[in-house]
Amino acid sequence: MDVVVVGAGFAGLTAARALRRAGRKVVVLEADGRVGGRTKAGRVAGEVVDLGGQWVGPGQTRLLALAEELGVATYPQYVEGKNIIDVDGRRVAYEGEVPALGPQATAEFAEVVGKIEALAAQVPALAPWTAPMAAELDSQTIESWLLANARLPATRTMMRLLVRAVMSAETSEVSFLACVAYAAAAGGFSPLISTRGGAQETLFDGGAWQMAAKMAQDLGPAVVLNAQVKAIAQDEAGVTVTTAQGAWRGRYVIVTAPPAMAARIDYTPALPAQRDGLSQRMPLGCVIKVHLAYARPFWREQGLSGLVISDRTEFGPWFDHSPLKGGGGSLVGFFDGGPAQRWADRPAAERRAKVLKDVALYFGEAALSPVDYAEEVWTRAPLQRGGYVSVPPPGALTAFGPALRASVGRIHWAGTETAEAWTGYIDGAIRSGEHAAQVVGGLL
Amino acid sequence: MDVVVVGAGFAGLTAARALRRAGRKVVVLEADGRVGGRTKAGRVAGEVVDLGGQWVGPGQTRLLALAEELGVATYPQYVEGKNIIDVDGRRVAYEGEVPALGPQATAEFAEVVGKIEALAAQVPALAPWTAPMAAELDSQTIESWLLANARLPATRTMMRLLVRAVMSAETSEVSFLACVAYAAAAGGFSPLISTRGGAQETLFDGGAWQMAAKMAQDLGPAVVLNAQVKAIAQDEAGVTVTTAQGAWRGRYVIVTAPPAMAARIDYTPALPAQRDGLSQRMPLGCVIKVHLAYARPFWREQGLSGLVISDRTEFGPWFDHSPLKGGGGSLVGFFDGGPAQRWADRPAAERRAKVLKDVALYFGEAALSPVDYAEEVWTRAPLQRGGYVSVPPPGALTAFGPALRASVGRIHWAGTETAEAWTGYIDGAIRSGEHAAQVVGGLL
Repeated sequence: MDVVVVGAGFAGLTAARALRRAGRKVVVLEADGRVGGRTKAGRVAGEVVDLGGQWVGPGQTRLLALAEELGVATYPQYVEGKNIIDVDGRRVAYEGEVPALGPQATAEFAEVVGKIEALAAQVPALAPWTAPMAAELDSQTIESWLLANARLPATRTMMRLLVRAVMSAETSEVSFLACVAYAAAAGGFSPLISTRGGAQETLFDGGAWQMAAKMAQDLGPAVVLNAQVKAIAQDEAGVTVTTAQGAWRGRYVIVTAPPAMAARIDYTPALPAQRDGLSQRMPLGCVIKVHLAYARPFWREQGLSGLVISDRTEFGPWFDHSPLKGGGGSLVGFFDGGPAQRWADRPAAERRAKVLKDVALYFGEAALSPVDYAEEVWTRAPLQRGGYVSVPPPGALTAFGPALRASVGRIHWAGTETAEAWTGYIDGAIRSGEHAAQVVGGLL
Repeated sequence: MDVVVVGAGFAGLTAARALRRAGRKVVVLEADGRVGGRTKAGRVAGEVVDLGGQWVGPGQTRLLALAEELGVATYPQYVEGKNIIDVDGRRVAYEGEVPALGPQATAEFAEVVGKIEALAAQVPALAPWTAPMAAELDSQTIESWLLANARLPATRTMMRLLVRAVMSAETSEVSFLACVAYAAAAGGFSPLISTRGGAQETLFDGGAWQMAAKMAQDLGPAVVLNAQVKAIAQDEAGVTVTTAQGAWRGRYVIVTAPPAMAARIDYTPALPAQRDGLSQRMPLGCVIKVHLAYARPFWREQGLSGLVISDRTEFGPWFDHSPLKGGGGSLVGFFDGGPAQRWADRPAAERRAKVLKDVALYFGEAALSPVDYAEEVWTRAPLQRGGYVSVPPPGALTAFGPALRASVGRIHWAGTETAEAWTGYIDGAIRSGEHAAQVVGGLL
């Protein structure tokens, strides 16, 4: 084998395809019984849906190109009607992309976003630790920065909700440098939080997971499922990658698992201290994704878009996710960060009751009777242990960041965490796979 | 087997002995080829020394009791003569425990320590997340708190150096709540940073590691070396603990590895999300310990105690560690936190040159010619990956802290991180082992 790829998510599948197109022999070892990584197919009320990553937006050019290549159609996220925002005791229905926070907080919120974007413009997404103010930004949490830079409770609460929704983590746990770098990788903070013109703009007809399935189909028997990698040993001639199903020998290995999960592989020789230290400092965010199906999208009849963001619920934000055909209605939403952490270990029935109660708070009693319900508790999933992305706490990036992409002998790292753009997104995963294939391909 | 203990450090050995004294059948599985965990024997200029934990201080009653029981004598850390402090461009030789920072900074430093101790008095060491101000303290780094609570550069620098020395981590990466809880577990911040009256007061004749060796001797064949635990499976009747040497069956298992290392074991069924999430958020501090031997303790002739703490060096602090007999001189010192991270992956010769250069800056050219040199790069050691202790970043303790001690079915957790007092110290490890033995013993 020329290259052993660990992980059959978008990063691994992309790398494997690129290498095979270049005439290389590859195998993709996947721990799970399915491909897709942090994307996954589910079913709700007869519709196939994404239990993981689902959206695509402008600038996510690699994912859009892949969809085109694989013949997966897209359609716009539903945004007709009014969004609901309920922050700091003030509940408003509004239209458009700018959260209606009241005049003062709206101005301050714009100012805060502007400050983050000005910083993001100075932070290289590939190496945020080289930014001139990196040490200062990395020695504080987003929360500390927020308390110093936003005075109004509504601004603060809104930012906390948005960081939770975008990074699946709390402002109290994430490095402010990591937040700025995340924005830098997306071309700004606004693209992260926006539907129209942002990362939640467009959906895939049939789901994003399909593209992983199609890539795997393409690769055929080169993708080995249920093959959790336990050990990677390297010597002068190559690597030996060991699973319960046996060992594979290759000249190089590309590991696409996020650092915290990649750390659970046994490496011989042991990894450098900087890489191991990084893997101890890149926890995955916490997320639970929920789909709710109804006989019809009844909220539309109330003039609502389906989007709700609220500090009175633990579930949320949620969005209209109604199927294009058939007249059924559905919602998709999240427990992110703290709420995901608090709800992950509880019984499914309690979680479902909480979701329905939270939705009913805004959509009325009709919300209490869905025709179907599906969820994925990513944070509890033994092979993923979180999502959407790894969230560096303070101090991690400036001290250990360079180890994120630095190859270790014959081991190369990929995965959305290592992307030069759209870190944390499917698009970033694809970019990282392309990059790893290019680097390793150049060595073969 | 009644109980399988994972790890033959002070926690595991203590638990195993206590259980065996209670008539239980135990086995201790140790990944390394030696016992002692984060203590370890070394040799420098013919003297046996501690390459890991070495000191004991007042209040560390369990370690003092163990030393007495095992017949290990103690002697005071050498403190005659003047310490050197070199902070913020001001180099002073002084006597006693209070760092000589100049009048203003000395006052401010005392104020800062006082504030931490006042907070520590309100934080229960066993459950810091239940303190009334826990959320606020845990949403910021020590650095953020320091910038808001100390105005003078010398105070700030001194605190940074002390946190580094005490927690083997940077103020920029550790939760302020974790710092306060660490002080709470030690009965204050002053005991952490003091020699006389503090955690660096007393040494063990022949080394602290001996006590682990003696406990292991006591346990005889119940301690199995080179048996790295790969998997723990539990069912209704008991646990199966698998190593490369084979599997052990027991009714309960006590895992003493720090959370980040315990996460590298494969658990069936998978651990709850809260426990796994904790293990992603408890990185080990970074530390490299160095012993330097000289023909004689020549610094004493200059009226110096041997203690140097400086912001102009990366190595340090260092202490006199001269043997009690024979007239030789020796120093023991550390790279902690950032410096340990930066130096861990470099060649040993470069590290040695750096140490000698740093010491010579204060002790003169004579420091450049040691008769022997020994080091332990804990941060690079594949089975430890850091020390002295796990250092929670912001957000970890309040959200995931309860999982630190909560048993998971038949799995119980020990190790100094779980101690009710002296977390991070040998004394805490002993306490945690006693506690685990008591809890598990009560279940048998």
